[in-house]
Amino acid sequence: MKKKSARRNKAASKPKITAPKLASGQKERTITNKSTEALDGTRTMIPRSKENNYTNEMAAKRREFIKEMTGVEVKHLANYSFDPQILKNNLENFFGVAQIPVGLAGPLLVNGEYAKGEFYVPLATTEGTLVASYNRGMRLSRQCGGIITTVVDAAMNRAPVFCFESAREARKFGQWLKDNFPEIKSKAEATDPFCRLKLIEQYAVGKLLYTRFDYVTGDAAGQNMVGKATFAVCEWLKSIIPDIKQYYLSGNIDTDKKHSFMNSLHTRGKRVIAEVTIPNEAYVSISKTITHEMFRFRNIANTGAILAGSNNNGQHAANGITAMFIACGMDVANVAESSAALLYSDLLPDGSYYYSITIPSLIVGTYGGGTALPTQTECRKILGCVGKDTANKLAEIVAATVLCGEISLGAAIIGKDWVSSHEKYGRNF
Amino acid sequence: MKKKSARRNKAASKPKITAPKLASGQKERTITNKSTEALDGTRTMIPRSKENNYTNEMAAKRREFIKEMTGVEVKHLANYSFDPQILKNNLENFFGVAQIPVGLAGPLLVNGEYAKGEFYVPLATTEGTLVASYNRGMRLSRQCGGIITTVVDAAMNRAPVFCFESAREARKFGQWLKDNFPEIKSKAEATDPFCRLKLIEQYAVGKLLYTRFDYVTGDAAGQNMVGKATFAVCEWLKSIIPDIKQYYLSGNIDTDKKHSFMNSLHTRGKRVIAEVTIPNEAYVSISKTITHEMFRFRNIANTGAILAGSNNNGQHAANGITAMFIACGMDVANVAESSAALLYSDLLPDGSYYYSITIPSLIVGTYGGGTALPTQTECRKILGCVGKDTANKLAEIVAATVLCGEISLGAAIIGKDWVSSHEKYGRNF
Amino acid sequence: MKKKSARRNKAASKPKITAPKLASGQKERTITNKSTEALDGTRTMIPRSKENNYTNEMAAKRREFIKEMTGVEVKHLANYSFDPQILKNNLENFFGVAQIPVGLAGPLLVNGEYAKGEFYVPLATTEGTLVASYNRGMRLSRQCGGIITTVVDAAMNRAPVFCFESAREARKFGQWLKDNFPEIKSKAEATDPFCRLKLIEQYAVGKLLYTRFDYVTGDAAGQNMVGKATFAVCEWLKSIIPDIKQYYLSGNIDTDKKHSFMNSLHTRGKRVIAEVTIPNEAYVSISKTITHEMFRFRNIANTGAILAGSNNNGQHAANGITAMFIACGMDVANVAESSAALLYSDLLPDGSYYYSITIPSLIVGTYGGGTALPTQTECRKILGCVGKDTANKLAEIVAATVLCGEISLGAAIIGKDWVSSHEKYGRNF
Amino acid sequence: MKKKSARRNKAASKPKITAPKLASGQKERTITNKSTEALDGTRTMIPRSKENNYTNEMAAKRREFIKEMTGVEVKHLANYSFDPQILKNNLENFFGVAQIPVGLAGPLLVNGEYAKGEFYVPLATTEGTLVASYNRGMRLSRQCGGIITTVVDAAMNRAPVFCFESAREARKFGQWLKDNFPEIKSKAEATDPFCRLKLIEQYAVGKLLYTRFDYVTGDAAGQNMVGKATFAVCEWLKSIIPDIKQYYLSGNIDTDKKHSFMNSLHTRGKRVIAEVTIPNEAYVSISKTITHEMFRFRNIANTGAILAGSNNNGQHAANGITAMFIACGMDVANVAESSAALLYSDLLPDGSYYYSITIPSLIVGTYGGGTALPTQTECRKILGCVGKDTANKLAEIVAATVLCGEISLGAAIIGKDWVSSHEKYGRNF
Repeated sequence: MKKKSARRNKAASKPKITAPKLASGQKERTITNKSTEALDGTRTMIPRSKENNYTNEMAAKRREFIKEMTGVEVKHLANYSFDPQILKNNLENFFGVAQIPVGLAGPLLVNGEYAKGEFYVPLATTEGTLVASYNRGMRLSRQCGGIITTVVDAAMNRAPVFCFESAREARKFGQWLKDNFPEIKSKAEATDPFCRLKLIEQYAVGKLLYTRFDYVTGDAAGQNMVGKATFAVCEWLKSIIPDIKQYYLSGNIDTDKKHSFMNSLHTRGKRVIAEVTIPNEAYVSISKTITHEMFRFRNIANTGAILAGSNNNGQHAANGITAMFIACGMDVANVAESSAALLYSDLLPDGSYYYSITIPSLIVGTYGGGTALPTQTECRKILGCVGKDTANKLAEIVAATVLCGEISLGAAIIGKDWVSSHEKYGRNF
Repeated sequence: MKKKSARRNKAASKPKITAPKLASGQKERTITNKSTEALDGTRTMIPRSKENNYTNEMAAKRREFIKEMTGVEVKHLANYSFDPQILKNNLENFFGVAQIPVGLAGPLLVNGEYAKGEFYVPLATTEGTLVASYNRGMRLSRQCGGIITTVVDAAMNRAPVFCFESAREARKFGQWLKDNFPEIKSKAEATDPFCRLKLIEQYAVGKLLYTRFDYVTGDAAGQNMVGKATFAVCEWLKSIIPDIKQYYLSGNIDTDKKHSFMNSLHTRGKRVIAEVTIPNEAYVSISKTITHEMFRFRNIANTGAILAGSNNNGQHAANGITAMFIACGMDVANVAESSAALLYSDLLPDGSYYYSITIPSLIVGTYGGGTALPTQTECRKILGCVGKDTANKLAEIVAATVLCGEISLGAAIIGKDWVSSHEKYGRNF
Repeated sequence: MKKKSARRNKAASKPKITAPKLASGQKERTITNKSTEALDGTRTMIPRSKENNYTNEMAAKRREFIKEMTGVEVKHLANYSFDPQILKNNLENFFGVAQIPVGLAGPLLVNGEYAKGEFYVPLATTEGTLVASYNRGMRLSRQCGGIITTVVDAAMNRAPVFCFESAREARKFGQWLKDNFPEIKSKAEATDPFCRLKLIEQYAVGKLLYTRFDYVTGDAAGQNMVGKATFAVCEWLKSIIPDIKQYYLSGNIDTDKKHSFMNSLHTRGKRVIAEVTIPNEAYVSISKTITHEMFRFRNIANTGAILAGSNNNGQHAANGITAMFIACGMDVANVAESSAALLYSDLLPDGSYYYSITIPSLIVGTYGGGTALPTQTECRKILGCVGKDTANKLAEIVAATVLCGEISLGAAIIGKDWVSSHEKYGRNF
Repeated sequence: MKKKSARRNKAASKPKITAPKLASGQKERTITNKSTEALDGTRTMIPRSKENNYTNEMAAKRREFIKEMTGVEVKHLANYSFDPQILKNNLENFFGVAQIPVGLAGPLLVNGEYAKGEFYVPLATTEGTLVASYNRGMRLSRQCGGIITTVVDAAMNRAPVFCFESAREARKFGQWLKDNFPEIKSKAEATDPFCRLKLIEQYAVGKLLYTRFDYVTGDAAGQNMVGKATFAVCEWLKSIIPDIKQYYLSGNIDTDKKHSFMNSLHTRGKRVIAEVTIPNEAYVSISKTITHEMFRFRNIANTGAILAGSNNNGQHAANGITAMFIACGMDVANVAESSAALLYSDLLPDGSYYYSITIPSLIVGTYGGGTALPTQTECRKILGCVGKDTANKLAEIVAATVLCGEISLGAAIIGKDWVSSHEKYGRNF
C-alpha cells in the first residue's frame, strides 16, 4: 500500500495523462486511476451516496478515494468533532475539516448599541503579529473609553435586470415598479417570514432597467433569502407585464462576492461605524510619533488611496474581518465586499485624534449559512452572539475590532516598528 | 464553578461595566471579573507565558480563562491535532482551532504549464451548492479538453512614499532611483535569498513621490519578505539622500489587503489566466440556453459591472478562491485583493464559446505563512503543491477552479435554476 | 512703440524678475513693466472701472494694457459683434472674443419626446474630420428611422456635509432630514421660483453626514440656483440644530466640474438615452465589417474600459458634447462630468444592431449662464432650443448627436479607415 | 422672405415630418424643405463644394441653407475675421464662428522651468465670478512668491489590442514586443519627425493583449500623430506575425476623450504639478478661516472624493482648464481627461499651508489642431506660447492657473462667501 501511495503521489505532480492541445475539442486521455464508481466515460468520480452522503463512512470513503487517486493520506483533516449530518445545507462531498488556529485578543471595550462592555475576540488567522497588533489597539482604545459603534444602515441585495424593446418601455416599467411597490413588497415578503423589502433602486441604461432590490433579512446574512424573494417577484412580473422581453436574476450590480462602488455607497450587509477619540498622550504611549503627525500622514494615505483607486483608504480592515469571519462562521468569501472601508479621522483642537472606520458592506449574520457549526458557534458564544437579534451586535464587535487594527498598524507605519514587529512575531522570512 | 460560568455568561451579554460616555477621556470602570494576571489597572489580561506561550497548557489556560470571563465552555475548538509549537510564527494567544468543513470537487482537468492533468480540489466552505456548482463546471470543462492556465506575471509589492520640499526634488529623486536601480536592487535582495526586485514604479503627486517596489518572491506570497527588503532600502536611502524629509513604508498604494485598480493593472501576487472553449452542444448540456444567448448576457453583465463600479465583471470568483485559500493555508484576508477579476469571453464563428478569467492579483504561496500547518499541507498535497516551485502550480489550479465556477453560475443565471439549486442543496432559508 | 512691443514680447518669455525661491515668504521682485493703475505694491493691475466695467472702452483699455505688458497686439479677439453690457453676469475683465469655427452637420433625424424631426446641428470644433464623422453617423441613423431619445431623469446637485460629535448624532440628524423633508423643501424652493427639491441623498461616514440635495431647475442648468437654495437650507439648519458643529456647502460629492461614479449612478443634469437599431445591410454600407463583428468588438471595448477604469465604455462622446456646448452656450467646463457615458448595444436575432448611449450627467440648460449670448442663441435657434421648455429638447439633440458619433467612429475602428480619414480631413501631422 | 423665415422657424420646433416608429426599418417621410443639392433620396443635404469648400461663399451658402431649412437668420456667427481657407484641417461645413467672451486675469506669477515670470491669462468662459475668483488666487499666490510649476512626465497614447488564439500566444507576442522594441520604435518614428515612442505598456486579459503605446510628440498634442504611427506599426506587425488573428487600433484603454484611472496613473498629455506655500497670515487675508481649518476640511473633501468615486479630489480644475483651452486653441473635448486632478496639501509646522495640484493628463499643444487659428494664436501670444518649444510652458501656465482657482474656491467654501459671490458677479438666477 505504501508503495502504491508513493506512486500515486508522483502521479499527482507528473500526471500520466496527455495534456490536451489548445482550444481543441474532445481529446483522448489515458487515465489509469479509476475508482469503482467511474460512471462518466473515463471520468473518475468522487464517491457519493444517494441515500445519505453526509456520514462518517462517506467522508472516510472520500479520503480513501483521495489516497487512491493521489497517494495522499489525509489524517489531520479527518480530525473533526461533529456528525457530518449537520453539513447538509453547507457542503457537498465532505471529507474532513481544515483546522485554522484561533487566537484570543482583548479585552475589547465596546460602547455600542448592541454590543456593550468588554469582549474577548477570537481571531482565526495564520498571519503572525496580527493578534498581537489588534490586541495593542484594543488596549489603547480601552484606555480612551472604548470603541463607540453604530449600525447606520442594513441591506441585502439582489439585482435583476429587465430587458425591453426601448428605453421608454424600460422607463414606463420603472414607474410601474414605483407605483406598485406595496404589492411587489408583499409578493417578496411572502417567501420568507424574516424578509423585508425596503427599496427597489433603479438604473436606466439603454433599453435595460437595472434594478437592485434592497432587503433587511433579520439575523441572517440573507443572500439566499433575497434571491428566492426576488426570483418570486421577477417571475410574477414576467407573467403579468408582456413588455418584459427577458430578465436575468442578476444584472451584476448586486454585487455579490465582489467589491463595487455601489456597495460602498448604498450598503450591502451592515453599514457600521466604529469611532474612538485618542488623546495625544495616549497615542504617544503606543507610537513613536504624535497625533499631529498622524493627521498629516492620513492626508498622504488618502491621496495614495485615491491615486491607487483603492476601495479602502485605511490600512488592513480585511485582516480583522477575515479572522473573525472564519472563527465565527460567516461566509468568508464575503471578505470581497466586506473589506471595503472609509477611514475618516480628525485632529481635534486639543490635539486628540478622532479615529473612525465606516464599513459599508459588512456581511454578517448569526443565523443560517455556516453559523450553526460547532467551533463557529463556540466563537460566537464567546462574543455573546448566539441567538435572536445578535447580528447587529456581531457587526459592532467586528467594526470595533477592525478599528483597533487600524490604530495599531497606523501607528506602526508612522513609527517604523512595523517590519521589526513582523520579524519578532511574524513569519521568519 | 458551573454557577459562576452561568453568571459570567450573563455578564457577556449584559455587562456590569458602566459604558463610557462619548469622546471622553479616561473613565472609571467597575470590572468584577479579574484573571490572576491582571496587570494593567483594571484590565483583565489574557493568560500569557513569557517562557513558552505555544503549548497545550497555555491553550487550555486560555480556554479556561474564556470560561472564567464569559461562561462559555470551549470544546470543539480544542479538537486540534498538532503541537501548538508549530504556530510560533503564525498566531499569538492560541486557544484552539476553527473547524471548517472541506468538500471535494473534481476531477478538474488542467492544461497548465505547472499544473498538468486531473486534480481533485479541496474546497473549505459552508455555502451549500458551492462544491456541487464548481463540480458541474469541472465536468463540463473536462469534456471540452480541460482548462488551459497561464501565469503571465507575478509581483509582490511594498509601496513607500517619499516626502520632499518640492515636486522638483521629488522628480530628481525619481531620476536617481532609475539611475541607481542596480545598487538598490542589490540592497533589497541582500535581505533574503528568494527576494528579487523587478521594478520600482513611480507616481508623482505634489512634493511626494509614491513608489511601488515590485518583487518576485519564490514560492512565498512574500508580503513580509518585501516589507523587510523595502525597509532596508528606505533606511539606506534616507541615510544618504538628505532631500528626503520623511518617508513612510506604505503610502497606501501597495495595496495590501485591499482591492485597487493599481493591483488589477499592475499585478499583485500572480496574474493568472484560465481559458476554455465550450462548443455550443456541450454548453447546452448544462444550461437551458445557447452560447449566443450567453454572449448577449455577457454584454449585460459587463455593462452592469461598469455601472456598479465593480472590481470584477464575472460572477463569484471569491467563492472558489476563498474555499481554496482556507483549505490550502493561504492568507485568507488576501481575498480582498484576490477577488478582483476580468472575465472575457468570445463567441466564435462556429458558435462555440471562448471563456476566460484573468485574475490579476491572486496572492498564493506554498512556503511561509500558514502553509506548513497540518490540514493545510494535506490539502496542498492532494493538489501536488507541497515543496519547491509549486506556487505557480497552485495559482493555476485556483484559476482553473474559479473559471469552472464562472461557467456553472453563468449558466445558472441564464437558465434560472439558480434559486432552485440553492433551495435543494443550500441553506434552508 | 513697435520697438517697445518687441522688447515686451521678449520680456514675456524671458522675464526680468528674480524667480522666488521654493516655499519662501514674500520676495523682492524687480518688475519694470508698470501700468498706471498699479495699486497693490509692485503688482500691475488689469484696468478696471468701478462705474462700468462692461464697455467697449474698458475692453479696449485692457487690450491696450495687454500690448503694454506683453507687446502683443490683439486684433482678432476684438472682432465681436455685441455690446459688452450683456456680459455682466458672465465674465469679468472682458477684452474680446475667441472665435471658434462652427460647422454644420445633418440632417439628424430625432425621434424624441421633445425633439422631433430633422435637425441641422452646429458643431464648434477645431478637430478635422469630426463634423464629417458625425455627419456620416447622422446619415446612417436617418436611414434606420432616426435616433430615438428619452430623458429618463434629471437632477442638479449641491452636496453639503454636516459635522457632528459622533456617528450617532449624524444618524439622528439624517433621520431628522427625512422627517422634516417637506419643510426643508419649502425653505429651499422659496429661494427661486424654478427650484424644486426632489430628494436629499445621505451617506454616513464616521461623524460626518454627507448629503446630496437633488433638484430640478427648469430650463436652467441650475448650479447657482441649487447653491443658493441649499445654502439657505443649511444656514437655517445650522441655526436650529445645535448638534451641527459645522457644515460645508460642498463635501465634494456634488461632484461639480468633475466626473464621479456618483454622478453616473444618480444623475447630474439630464440622464438621457439615445437609441437606434441598424440593420446589418445598412451597417455594412458605412463599414468594412458586419454587425456580428461589431458586437464582438463591443465586448473587447467593454473589457478595455473596465481594465482602464474609464468613465465611458464608448468611443468619444466628449467630442460631440463639447462641440455643441461651445456652439450653444453651455458651460463647457461641464464636459468634465457630461463626458461620462454608458454604451450598450445588442445583436438582435435578425442580425441588426441595437445601439444605445446613456449619458448620465449631461449638463444642459437653455436659460441662464452663457445661453443668452448672441452666437450661442443663434445656434440654439437653429435647433429650435430657445425659449421655455427647451432644455430637454436640447438634451435629446445632444444625445442623438453623440450616438451618431459613436456609430461612425465605432465603424472606423473596426474598419481601419480611422487613420486614413484623419489623414484626408484632419490635421496633417 | 421674412414671412418665410417665420414659417420655417415654426417648422423647426414643430416639424412636418412624420416621426418614424420605434426600431423600424426604412420609413416614409414627408420632407417639404429641399435644397437644390438633395442627392440622397429625401435627404436634404448641406451645401458642399467639391472644388473648394472652405470659402466665404460656401459659408454664406450654408447660412442661407440654414435660413431656408429652419427660418433662422444667422448674423453674429457670420462675424469672423479670417479667411475660411485656414480651416482646411480643422472643420468641415464651416458657416461661422461662436463668439466666446474672453476675460483677463493676472498677474499670475509663475516660477516654472518653462514659464518664468508674470503672466496675464486669457480665460474664455461665460460663468460669472470665475475670472474674479481665479484673479483672487493669483493675487494671493503672487504674495507668496508665485506658483512653482513642474512638468514631470509626458505621453500621448494610442492603445491597440491584439487578439490571439490563447493567453500563451498573447504572452509570447508580449515578449516579442519587448525584445523587438528598437525596431518597433523605428517603424513608429519613421511616420513623423516629431514622434518619439517611449514605451509600450502591456496588459494581459484572456487571449487578448491590450497595449498602450506611449509617445512624446514635440509641441503637438499629438493624437493624430500617434494614431498614424501606431497604425503603421500594427499593420507591420500583422503582416509579419501570423499569430495575430486580429487587432483593433484602439482597445479602449487609450483613453481618448474620456477619463480613466489609467490616464491618471500613467499620464496622458502632460503630467504637471503646481505648488505654492501660503503663510497663515496671507491665507487669512482672503479667507474667513485659518490654515489649520483648511487642512481639516481637506480631509473631509478627500473623504468625499473617495466616497463619490471622483476623478478629482480638488474643487474645479475643469473651470480654469476649459477657459484656457477655448481661448488658446486646445481641443476642448480633452477636458474630459484633462479635468482629472490630485490635490495634495500639507499643514507645515509653522502653520503655513502647502498647496499642490497634480494634473496627470493635461492635453496641451502649441502646434497643430486649432492652435494656428487667429484669436487662439493671439491668446497664446499673450502668454508667450507661440512657436517652438512652448507646449510645456503652456502646460505650466495652465497648471498654475488651476491652482489659483483651487486656492480661491477652497477659501470660499470654508468661508461661506461662495454663494454671495455668485449672487454678486454670477448669473442672476
